[in-house]
Amino acid sequence: MLNHLSLSCLNSSSNMGDLSGSKGTVLVAGGAGYIGSHTTVEVLKEGYNAVVVDNLCNSSMESIERVREISGINITFYNVDLLDKAALREVFEKHQFDFVMHFAGLKAVGESCTKPLAYYKNNIDGSMILMEVMEEFGVHNIVFSSSATVYGVPQYLPLDENHPAGACTNPYGKTKYFIEEILADQNAANPNWNVVLLRYFNPCGAHKSGRIGEDPQGPPNNLMPYVAQVAVGRRPELSVFGNDYNTLDGTGVRDYIHVVDLALGHVAALRKLQENCGCKIYNLGTGTGYSVLEMIKAFEKASGNPIPYKFVGRRNGDVDSVYADPTLVAKELGWKAVRGLEEMCEDLWRWQSMNPTGFRLAEAES
Amino acid sequence: MLNHLSLSCLNSSSNMGDLSGSKGTVLVAGGAGYIGSHTTVEVLKEGYNAVVVDNLCNSSMESIERVREISGINITFYNVDLLDKAALREVFEKHQFDFVMHFAGLKAVGESCTKPLAYYKNNIDGSMILMEVMEEFGVHNIVFSSSATVYGVPQYLPLDENHPAGACTNPYGKTKYFIEEILADQNAANPNWNVVLLRYFNPCGAHKSGRIGEDPQGPPNNLMPYVAQVAVGRRPELSVFGNDYNTLDGTGVRDYIHVVDLALGHVAALRKLQENCGCKIYNLGTGTGYSVLEMIKAFEKASGNPIPYKFVGRRNGDVDSVYADPTLVAKELGWKAVRGLEEMCEDLWRWQSMNPTGFRLAEAES
Repeated sequence: MLNHLSLSCLNSSSNMGDLSGSKGTVLVAGGAGYIGSHTTVEVLKEGYNAVVVDNLCNSSMESIERVREISGINITFYNVDLLDKAALREVFEKHQFDFVMHFAGLKAVGESCTKPLAYYKNNIDGSMILMEVMEEFGVHNIVFSSSATVYGVPQYLPLDENHPAGACTNPYGKTKYFIEEILADQNAANPNWNVVLLRYFNPCGAHKSGRIGEDPQGPPNNLMPYVAQVAVGRRPELSVFGNDYNTLDGTGVRDYIHVVDLALGHVAALRKLQENCGCKIYNLGTGTGYSVLEMIKAFEKASGNPIPYKFVGRRNGDVDSVYADPTLVAKELGWKAVRGLEEMCEDLWRWQSMNPTGFRLAEAES
Repeated sequence: MLNHLSLSCLNSSSNMGDLSGSKGTVLVAGGAGYIGSHTTVEVLKEGYNAVVVDNLCNSSMESIERVREISGINITFYNVDLLDKAALREVFEKHQFDFVMHFAGLKAVGESCTKPLAYYKNNIDGSMILMEVMEEFGVHNIVFSSSATVYGVPQYLPLDENHPAGACTNPYGKTKYFIEEILADQNAANPNWNVVLLRYFNPCGAHKSGRIGEDPQGPPNNLMPYVAQVAVGRRPELSVFGNDYNTLDGTGVRDYIHVVDLALGHVAALRKLQENCGCKIYNLGTGTGYSVLEMIKAFEKASGNPIPYKFVGRRNGDVDSVYADPTLVAKELGWKAVRGLEEMCEDLWRWQSMNPTGFRLAEAES
């Protein structure tokens, strides 16, 4: 891979990617979504070309427009579902990819429990079809969006990458774990494959511009988008699930990570792939946990608005505390999260207050 | 389910199955294979109708003919691959199934390590498509062929159903575990589904008639078919992998179960489904382990032929001993294995000596 890249710098007629002299071309599957769009911005900034495929089932074309606006680059977008192998093959025929970043997938934990087959089908089949097409076109470098949920209930804290994985409490988490295993086995069978599995902790925040951010459809499943919607007046109050956890204030503690830090973790993973790294697993977290009440307080400060909340019962499957040991990723990728709680809340508030109804109003206006 | 069955006994025009008055109609997916064919015989004997689908990729049409001959029933067979959803739907349109038995899948451990994507695709996709079609046609009762390999390296012996599962050492085993999880989640999401997951130990032997048996393509991956092919002169000698295990004679100990006992375990599972049992997991083993040398000796006695063997190095992933705790299945299904080592070897030898080249010669002759 490194030789291949070096060569392309010397030879503008090389078959490296769409633009000669670039660092290579990245297929971003699911690039219209929250993490995909922020990562696309950072990938472009780093000098890669990006081609986005997304079925827009849970994301918006407007986010693609805004990534173009932020980056000043007219990235190529295809409305393609990974389950549509013929359409995906056409994309691979049009572009020579050096890397794939795979963000595509259904991600609502609750929905995955009521529609498990849809989740397994969409996430696992989509990934396998993507891998088949990669194999067919000789593209063997992939970064996969996994999740700390693969660790299940922590047996110890902080969670390092050696913590047992697989005992997930819901089908969504299992799809992430199964895809990790399939990718790892593919690398074991064919060492030409390089695979970086990134286990996200709790992404929040938004791009500094306030132009892209998380835009959940329906009531948010995660704390911070919900808090932001309460702050902006879209929802009357927040329900806090449980105040009797064994934590400093009784509410659950999680490791929130700024989405731009997360995106930069992906850029670091692209560099790792170029070392023919084999199969690697990294936590993307800060190493610091904050409680629900700490997050509410920080967001009240950032937004200048009160966040009314009430305590309700615990949610099934929730645990006291979850936070990362980010030592390995710092050592091997030279990456660590540098954006703190205040910045996460300020950036989230900028996005939410500039786009009170997410991308949808902007689309209606345009 | 029970009410539905009772009704059908009263009303011959009910939509119960293919034959009124029967115990119901079973779709046997993978019914032309070793375990599938033996189970079909026992299911028919018990008074169910059976419809077999199989893509014959690793099995033979001749086995279907012989099941017809043994049972005296002209069972319906479709050459259908589970990945072909349209073809599978046609089968469901023609028959009203009460139960599905799912034996279909690739099963060579070694090949699964070199072609993981093919294994994941075939086994998981095939199972998901089968489940989708079942859901579409309102068929919610399934017995699934799983394997003791889902237990991975035993943490204790004998293996009961509470032993941790999922730490499989090869992609074949993982496909079994992933399908178990998908089926269990489907039951959790929709309690109309009844699921019995049967974890097989080491099936061997053959039907008493000698007309059906295990017919591996290429060199057998498992001990007993290899031993039988040596005894019949198809292979010069057996390689015994490792003689320094911590067992009575240094060779690996496994729990061999007669395939007819295994088949009867499936019949018991069909009864369990009719109690609206939810999702159940059972070991199908005898509870007794035999070493490789014990098996060789028993087969020499049964066949009257010497089995030349040599010791070679251990195989990756093999462990000292694996055997079942069959207590739960005895208690809840009223089933236990009753055919001993001698009978397994005699029946295997009858099959092998009557069909020295398996089903293939018979086909060539016919």
